[in-house]
Amino acid sequence: MEITSLTNAKVKQWVKYKEKKHRDQDKKFIIEGEHLLEEAHKAGLIDCIIIEKGKTSPYVEYPQYEVTKEILKKIANSVSGNWIMAVCNYPNYQDIKGNKIVMLDGVQDPGNLGTILRTAHSFSYHTVILSKDSVDVFNDKVVRSTQGALFHLNVIRMDLKEAIKDLKEKGYHIYGTSLHEAKSLQEVSIEENHVLIMGNEGQGVREDILALTDQNIYIEMDTFESLNVAVAAGICMYTLNKR
Amino acid sequence: MEITSLTNAKVKQWVKYKEKKHRDQDKKFIIEGEHLLEEAHKAGLIDCIIIEKGKTSPYVEYPQYEVTKEILKKIANSVSGNWIMAVCNYPNYQDIKGNKIVMLDGVQDPGNLGTILRTAHSFSYHTVILSKDSVDVFNDKVVRSTQGALFHLNVIRMDLKEAIKDLKEKGYHIYGTSLHEAKSLQEVSIEENHVLIMGNEGQGVREDILALTDQNIYIEMDTFESLNVAVAAGICMYTLNKR
Repeated sequence: MEITSLTNAKVKQWVKYKEKKHRDQDKKFIIEGEHLLEEAHKAGLIDCIIIEKGKTSPYVEYPQYEVTKEILKKIANSVSGNWIMAVCNYPNYQDIKGNKIVMLDGVQDPGNLGTILRTAHSFSYHTVILSKDSVDVFNDKVVRSTQGALFHLNVIRMDLKEAIKDLKEKGYHIYGTSLHEAKSLQEVSIEENHVLIMGNEGQGVREDILALTDQNIYIEMDTFESLNVAVAAGICMYTLNKR
Repeated sequence: MEITSLTNAKVKQWVKYKEKKHRDQDKKFIIEGEHLLEEAHKAGLIDCIIIEKGKTSPYVEYPQYEVTKEILKKIANSVSGNWIMAVCNYPNYQDIKGNKIVMLDGVQDPGNLGTILRTAHSFSYHTVILSKDSVDVFNDKVVRSTQGALFHLNVIRMDLKEAIKDLKEKGYHIYGTSLHEAKSLQEVSIEENHVLIMGNEGQGVREDILALTDQNIYIEMDTFESLNVAVAAGICMYTLNKR
């Protein structure tokens, strides 16, 4: 089907997906570019393809809308001028699974969340639990920074205290991250079934969450400085698995 | 001095610093917010203060311009609405110093460069060498992501091949990062005086640079996935110092 009008009803609907409330309502979000489409296709989550008129889609099995460059630009969140996009269905995230879990307490920056999801996938942390005040996982910048990892992970938004209680009962060891009353990452005993909790960019993990952990850890630094939360998460995930 | 006109010559000059060519011409750049100002002040690099009319600057030793909110907004790169900014002089970066060096081959994303500088400072990599095609270190997003680390580091932009030749002669061990013909980060022998080379977001370190290294290393991952370059840099810097 071809669409040339910027005021077409479909176009208006797709533009609305820039806002969380409309994404949540339809349980759909927009992805841009070949790499993300390939990952969404493999995950079976593509609803329809939006493509620049005259170009050929590698995915013929989905409904396809041929549109003008102006329409693509209007729908797009990025400025990179992609010729192919897709409407994706929300993944059907399951209950907690896997032996390694990342938990995020109030991470706000979309790039940080996306990067942490990408790292989690690379180090086999199959489940990521987000506090209710963390940034939305279907935010376009999050989706782009994941490089497709969000299609392979199990991402759950829930109350962290309830999650910790449940995970402790299931035998997971809970590691918090904190600069106070904590063991260094090199000294901590490593438990195979574990949860790693990372905190908000400015405040870190909340005190009432830290009080529920089995062990808090810190990353040894030479100067008393701070690390970006996605970098800190990467160092912890790598070290807890390779040390 | 008070400025109320958006077309004032000073305001026009400050707005120009959004562009690299004007920054390079005057060797000055704009910083925003209390934390960065404090770091720039400690480093002795503040040229003048730009402050919202009616607010009190903690830095009375510098020339001060009281301006309207509209002017601050026009000068600002961020959307966060800071009440205080400063014009900063370029640091006077010295020759290569320190026993640990990070080298970046074509890193393009400002957030990645800034985050790598922040990590480098935390792990005592005192010098960062950028290839000539890397993103500008005084780009506002780079400056913000460093969280002030750029005022403590030595950042040099030069031809990487020349830099490697020079550093080898000085006895530094050169680690490249690569997925091919490389040793795992856990297996590699650790040399105290070393250079860690990280590459472009899409292509990694160029082949002709990898050919000049003493040893190439890779980060062990469970799935054949990729890591964000700032996360990978963090894992390498941490592990080369703590393993």
